[in-house]
Amino acid sequence: MSDVSDKTDTTGKRMGLGRRELLALGAGFTLGGISPPAAAAIEPWRQPQPETGEPASPPRVAMLVYPKMVLLDLVGPLTVMNLLPAEVHLVWKDKSPVSTDVGLPVTASTTFAECPENLDVLLVPGGISGTVQCMNDLEVITFLSQRGASTKYVTSVCTGSLVLAAAGLLKGYRATSHWAVADLLPLMGARPARGRVVRDRNRITGGGVTAGLDFGLVLAALLKGEEEARRIQLTLEYSPAPPYRNGTPEEAGPERTAEVKRRRRALDEQARVAAEAARDRLGL
Amino acid sequence: MSDVSDKTDTTGKRMGLGRRELLALGAGFTLGGISPPAAAAIEPWRQPQPETGEPASPPRVAMLVYPKMVLLDLVGPLTVMNLLPAEVHLVWKDKSPVSTDVGLPVTASTTFAECPENLDVLLVPGGISGTVQCMNDLEVITFLSQRGASTKYVTSVCTGSLVLAAAGLLKGYRATSHWAVADLLPLMGARPARGRVVRDRNRITGGGVTAGLDFGLVLAALLKGEEEARRIQLTLEYSPAPPYRNGTPEEAGPERTAEVKRRRRALDEQARVAAEAARDRLGL
Repeated sequence: MSDVSDKTDTTGKRMGLGRRELLALGAGFTLGGISPPAAAAIEPWRQPQPETGEPASPPRVAMLVYPKMVLLDLVGPLTVMNLLPAEVHLVWKDKSPVSTDVGLPVTASTTFAECPENLDVLLVPGGISGTVQCMNDLEVITFLSQRGASTKYVTSVCTGSLVLAAAGLLKGYRATSHWAVADLLPLMGARPARGRVVRDRNRITGGGVTAGLDFGLVLAALLKGEEEARRIQLTLEYSPAPPYRNGTPEEAGPERTAEVKRRRRALDEQARVAAEAARDRLGL
Repeated sequence: MSDVSDKTDTTGKRMGLGRRELLALGAGFTLGGISPPAAAAIEPWRQPQPETGEPASPPRVAMLVYPKMVLLDLVGPLTVMNLLPAEVHLVWKDKSPVSTDVGLPVTASTTFAECPENLDVLLVPGGISGTVQCMNDLEVITFLSQRGASTKYVTSVCTGSLVLAAAGLLKGYRATSHWAVADLLPLMGARPARGRVVRDRNRITGGGVTAGLDFGLVLAALLKGEEEARRIQLTLEYSPAPPYRNGTPEEAGPERTAEVKRRRRALDEQARVAAEAARDRLGL
């Protein structure tokens, strides 16, 4: 990243906006993946907010980024968490840009090794074949299963739940996924549940792609209360009005569903093979 | 962008996925801002699809990117257009990464000078103070007013409509914007209309941030028909279920609305000053 318009943070990898910008969007501050000591040095307002009695530390959120992910799965929850505000770390093995479905690369702010231990949220977004690769990647699986054991909320959007399940994190939990692959969850010990956002104890899983917004608001309410979630919903004017009632197989009907499944067949078969390998690895 | 995991296109600025990946998501191909001759050389499948009789050329879409934009305003419609598929150009003055609200930079694929003349869609997403800067930036205004005169659909999401209006492109047209600034539209000759997606002749404007998904599907139906839009809606599992009914001032009630407006006050005042300057420039 040699040439960055506007501001850049000390690492040059991600860019934050000024406090005035963030206030305008309803946020108090953001750390944008800067580790706390550096942030304290450059963000002197990161102090308890006397007028509201807000605690000094925002929720600490790690979101996995990986090659061949679906960008919208990430940007929905990321936008909500940014307005909360949360301290968000985009985590991956390294800080090389990774590809996304829409051709815009994303760069991790934090490596697995740098990722803080005491997370409030661990989120795995969904993807295309990158999701299958993560299910089969022991470095990814090991990172998730270690952090998942000590994180307050272990979460996913879309096919990200397949990766959580492959890491053994959904064994015995109710969970959802993109409708086209939700039938793979029980192979890895999860109890499949239909629902836009499914919570079972500290596991929170969202449905396909666009469920990331509903998921993000549910998470915001858990972290900072209903009023904060409502403020963010109004800021984002989230009063959806889809042109058709066609977002689920039930709504779309069998013919349209078969057509979408047909186009996804090769990918969904790869996911099944990976789920079966994970089942064997987990001894299920 | 020195080190890119996975694939990179010939410019190294944006990354496309293979045909198999795209088919899995329901798309036939994408050009991702690559100009047609280069694309033809590296994407041999960019031919008429004999099995469906699909025309050779996908819709040609230019989306403005700019510093201090809101990433979700872009990624909603971009995700839908990518599945259509469309030939998408992310356009800006130059190809330096620009900042976004969530700290992830975005890089234009196409400069104003390189942008094709015969566009099917011109889209301006919304933003924070970057939107105000665009309203005041004669280079941006000139580009938009020139391209807007010959583009099939002139469109916006969120506060992007303020930029279209400042370029004189909404004079006499019904249009919408983020609820907090919709009152500025008439200063620039537009006729404010409430609605998630408002169409008046070839102008299509969406409401705040999350309206980009509804807008994208409406646009997809106009470009390729209702069945294609429905296929994309099912692929993205767009059957929204917000946790609260709190996405508009009417839903949220006066107290919550006042609180969000209070936090936005400085930004909205800057937008008003820019709208007044545009009004004078447009001779209204």
